[in-house]
Amino acid sequence: MLYTEIPSQRPVTPLLNGIDHPQQLRQLAQDQLAQVADELRQYIIYAAGQSGGHFGANLGVIELSVALHYCFNTPYDRLVWDVGHQAYPHKVLTGRREQITTIRAKEGLAAFPAREESEFDTFGVGHSSTAISAGLGMALASRYQNTPREVVAIVGDGAMTAGMAFEAMNDAVAHNADLMVILNDNDMSISCSTGGFAKHLAAIWEKGQFVNIDEQGQAFIQECPEWTYTSRLHQSATDAADNLFKAIGFDYFGPFDGHDVDQLVQVFNALKKRKGPRLIHIYTVKGKGFAPAEADQIKYHAIGKINATPSQNIAPKYSDVFGQWLCDEAAQDERLLAITPAMCEGSGMVQFAKQFPERYFDVAIAEQHAVTLAAGMACEGLKPVVAIYSTFLQRGYDQLIHDVALQNLDVTFGIDRAGLVGEDGPTHAGAYDYAFMRTVPNMVIMAPKDENECRQMLHTAYLHQGPTAVRYPRGNGLGVEIQKQLTPLEIGKAEIVAEFNLEHEECISILAFGSRVGVAIEAARKLAEHLEIAVRVINMRFVKPLDEQIIRDLAEKTSLFVTVEEHAVMAGAGSAVNEFLAQAQIVKPMLNLGLPDAFLAQASHAEMLQTCGLDAQGIQNSIEQAWLKMIQHI
Amino acid sequence: MLYTEIPSQRPVTPLLNGIDHPQQLRQLAQDQLAQVADELRQYIIYAAGQSGGHFGANLGVIELSVALHYCFNTPYDRLVWDVGHQAYPHKVLTGRREQITTIRAKEGLAAFPAREESEFDTFGVGHSSTAISAGLGMALASRYQNTPREVVAIVGDGAMTAGMAFEAMNDAVAHNADLMVILNDNDMSISCSTGGFAKHLAAIWEKGQFVNIDEQGQAFIQECPEWTYTSRLHQSATDAADNLFKAIGFDYFGPFDGHDVDQLVQVFNALKKRKGPRLIHIYTVKGKGFAPAEADQIKYHAIGKINATPSQNIAPKYSDVFGQWLCDEAAQDERLLAITPAMCEGSGMVQFAKQFPERYFDVAIAEQHAVTLAAGMACEGLKPVVAIYSTFLQRGYDQLIHDVALQNLDVTFGIDRAGLVGEDGPTHAGAYDYAFMRTVPNMVIMAPKDENECRQMLHTAYLHQGPTAVRYPRGNGLGVEIQKQLTPLEIGKAEIVAEFNLEHEECISILAFGSRVGVAIEAARKLAEHLEIAVRVINMRFVKPLDEQIIRDLAEKTSLFVTVEEHAVMAGAGSAVNEFLAQAQIVKPMLNLGLPDAFLAQASHAEMLQTCGLDAQGIQNSIEQAWLKMIQHI
Repeated sequence: MLYTEIPSQRPVTPLLNGIDHPQQLRQLAQDQLAQVADELRQYIIYAAGQSGGHFGANLGVIELSVALHYCFNTPYDRLVWDVGHQAYPHKVLTGRREQITTIRAKEGLAAFPAREESEFDTFGVGHSSTAISAGLGMALASRYQNTPREVVAIVGDGAMTAGMAFEAMNDAVAHNADLMVILNDNDMSISCSTGGFAKHLAAIWEKGQFVNIDEQGQAFIQECPEWTYTSRLHQSATDAADNLFKAIGFDYFGPFDGHDVDQLVQVFNALKKRKGPRLIHIYTVKGKGFAPAEADQIKYHAIGKINATPSQNIAPKYSDVFGQWLCDEAAQDERLLAITPAMCEGSGMVQFAKQFPERYFDVAIAEQHAVTLAAGMACEGLKPVVAIYSTFLQRGYDQLIHDVALQNLDVTFGIDRAGLVGEDGPTHAGAYDYAFMRTVPNMVIMAPKDENECRQMLHTAYLHQGPTAVRYPRGNGLGVEIQKQLTPLEIGKAEIVAEFNLEHEECISILAFGSRVGVAIEAARKLAEHLEIAVRVINMRFVKPLDEQIIRDLAEKTSLFVTVEEHAVMAGAGSAVNEFLAQAQIVKPMLNLGLPDAFLAQASHAEMLQTCGLDAQGIQNSIEQAWLKMIQHI
Repeated sequence: MLYTEIPSQRPVTPLLNGIDHPQQLRQLAQDQLAQVADELRQYIIYAAGQSGGHFGANLGVIELSVALHYCFNTPYDRLVWDVGHQAYPHKVLTGRREQITTIRAKEGLAAFPAREESEFDTFGVGHSSTAISAGLGMALASRYQNTPREVVAIVGDGAMTAGMAFEAMNDAVAHNADLMVILNDNDMSISCSTGGFAKHLAAIWEKGQFVNIDEQGQAFIQECPEWTYTSRLHQSATDAADNLFKAIGFDYFGPFDGHDVDQLVQVFNALKKRKGPRLIHIYTVKGKGFAPAEADQIKYHAIGKINATPSQNIAPKYSDVFGQWLCDEAAQDERLLAITPAMCEGSGMVQFAKQFPERYFDVAIAEQHAVTLAAGMACEGLKPVVAIYSTFLQRGYDQLIHDVALQNLDVTFGIDRAGLVGEDGPTHAGAYDYAFMRTVPNMVIMAPKDENECRQMLHTAYLHQGPTAVRYPRGNGLGVEIQKQLTPLEIGKAEIVAEFNLEHEECISILAFGSRVGVAIEAARKLAEHLEIAVRVINMRFVKPLDEQIIRDLAEKTSLFVTVEEHAVMAGAGSAVNEFLAQAQIVKPMLNLGLPDAFLAQASHAEMLQTCGLDAQGIQNSIEQAWLKMIQHI
């Protein structure tokens, strides 16, 4: 069935309602599976409308999810979902049918598989391309423990371009591991897939039809020696002159129609007891069965709640501010090239890609390569800008150190989704970038207080000769006016943004970084109402180099220093201030506010900030407590 | 010629002596190149005997280096050497012939190509698998700038297994970049190559002979349409049923004999003007032309100086302490599995690999995969130990966060080469691991004061349920007795290791981490002779969790806290102490000693420590200065 609307009423799903454990699915007759799949699809369309969340990828794996849980003895057999944004059908089939409408909400289901949520979620995930490595670990463990369980890693074609998938395939062959990899090929990552690998898959498809195993084929498999069977299944693949998976040493089967649940069942049953590393190549359609999503796969990668109240925040998103700056800077300077690891839309680069196609480089999901590619370009006197989420820069960390910073190359990093990221949860938190970047020599690191400063900082970073990073949060700006004019900031220069109760000589000095500047001012205003002391708020702007002079100047009149940041307290920006105070032999009380030493479950961004005490009220409370405790001791 | 001894006298090399710039090489007749290669080989054998350093890989690329500089217009054309330990012949041919005997020494030539050393060193390197990314960046820059230069990346077969090489090849095809990649296939990384990729290359070789281009072939090339030429060159490759490089979209040529300089010249001249991504597959022998090195390629990967004074230090290396612990722990606990990314020998795992082959996993150069593989094993209740150099863990950082720590999985990291690494220089410094690990929740991080504590800490880490890291330095222990008995330490518990001048109530408290504990005691002894104050030295043992109690207890009597570590001051262990003091509202002067915010050029480990003021004398001086400055202010 092809659906065209997201229903507001729960659809009627009699078979699905009887499945609270995949064991109940496995008790159905095979000819009922098509109906289960249809009900599951309707239910997912409905539920995603209630919760918002990932959409197209889930509709693409309806039949696959049904067939896997039908053929494999889950959870004893291990299903390892790569990325995991396509695990909604899996969650519904494994006892979480009624909870699925709470996905991504505070205290609801996690956005991705999570080990603490269910025994069916064998491996926590969120970033791409980990499943073959994790699955191989399980398969080798299973061999060592002599437990005859099956391990199946399900990986999209987009995720296959990341190097670690290749590393894992290479190693699976080294150990001749009993591992099944399902390549779920929909010709998409979040953006369109790109590169030699995508072309290679396209060449396989161009050869023609899906492989079919009919009733006779099934009988044939059971009776003939294995080599006969193998050569039969291999047929379409050997027709293609070259096959990367076979070259690396996998047995390759396919391509199969990933929406034919009967055929998937036959294939999985036939191949699950085979030994060695096997790759099963299936073709699916992102958004399958929902007409608007099939027609616009990028738009329907994720959807909002159907009954969501429209956001009141009309300020532009930080990613759009980045995108606009990129276009403006590129128009002024021909040396600018821009790189994204498969995040064109998320990073706000759609307009740039259209306007400057020859200067736009989507390198696929390949963060390591993205960073070193930029280094290579910088060697030739160009000025590459790498747009990357904070959490994904963790994948290019060695390249940042070894290829960019060590050679002091002129690369600008636009670091998006820095700090807490709300509904995506802990896998996507950008909570560690100050720490892992500031310890690296030559780095200049900035964080803007609002969207206009973000624009000016990007310009500042771009002009600076050397590796620079501007890190900005997920979501919308504050609604301030954005100056079209690009004006560089002075490197390492902070600004005092608020002063209260100046009639007192002694003050509390709040050194605020990035997204916490605005709320720090609010907190300071309230503090000034309660306490008989001056309160100053400094927009630090630079995590590295710090504005040491302003700290020195303030130190003389400061009774309590406070640092505030949307980053782990450990090794963060506040920690940099501590180091400077020690070095300068300035001995003062200090309160470091930031994220706690814990992985934080998903909730809205605002809820998470509140939980961490990083909203205005929380900051005020913490400072007031510290202050009162301090003056008691004096 | 096959040589059998490393000469102590400089060989006679008349042609080589005339080459101060590759332009002079290019003026020679082609039939003189074999002699140049022979002279170069003799000279490299001699020079490496003088300097010590990488050996086998350099002898393997003598003919390749000569042919490349003969055929390409360097430095206008770009040669990008991967890893770079094989760049000695390249350095000799590009104006550094006389300096080559200073390689790896303080103020001598760098161990690897370095941009600041020579315009011929197009990209600084040390870690593997970056060359295709960097070369692609240069090739795309060249296209954009409309400068018709050639770009050649030279990559070993071992380095090809790292995912980023695959990411870069995928992207090169996406852009149809004009990039030549030379696969220098010697069937080795530092250890033997492993995995599906190695098997794939072996399968290509098994097909038979090298491809040959004879005189007729050469004429043929110049006169025939390109497709004829291509199909001819392709021949041996298309005979192999599958070819990974062709599958991904590269034009593949080879395999060729990498020690036939005439043939290499013909091949390079024929292929250098072609468009698009090309892979030229050559076979070389590591250690070629030096009989002992051909016979034992692992031993001759690197050599010492022939006239070196034997080391007085008979204490075991930390890597051997790790290796022995690994065997002992494995004998006691069947759940232990051990993983190395291609560093069996360097990490001290030779004995373990022999004794427990079914529990030993060399995953090839694939740090990302190594970490997530361990995570997968831990999911099944096993207890994997990952042996990895600090600098290479930077490649698996996202996996450490996202796959191990976030799921609080029971993985033990044995982190070798932490701190300064001497002759290998800044690319291999392990100066950032405290910072990038301690900001991650759930991590437990230890650093031993000596080799016995290293052994006991590894045991402690292994017993702890969750992600733990023990980081230890390059080189030898202190010569203390190693207790066979494994005794766990209490997590988060430091020890006072020295106290002087206890007749004074007030003290200087030196909180020392890992390798700096011993010298801190020396420094304290001297300080106690000069200053009228008690001096205490604490072996902190844990960077995370810190022993907060001991710091609180000391605080009451401490006039000056000092932290000392062989790690960047920025975001390091001392910084963790600062954070705790702030949190506990302990307001005391603090001196953080550690590595400066700079990349440090190579020298001996001892020289580097001295330069950084991290030997006993340096520590003493810094503390004394800080103390005197402090008491002036009081």
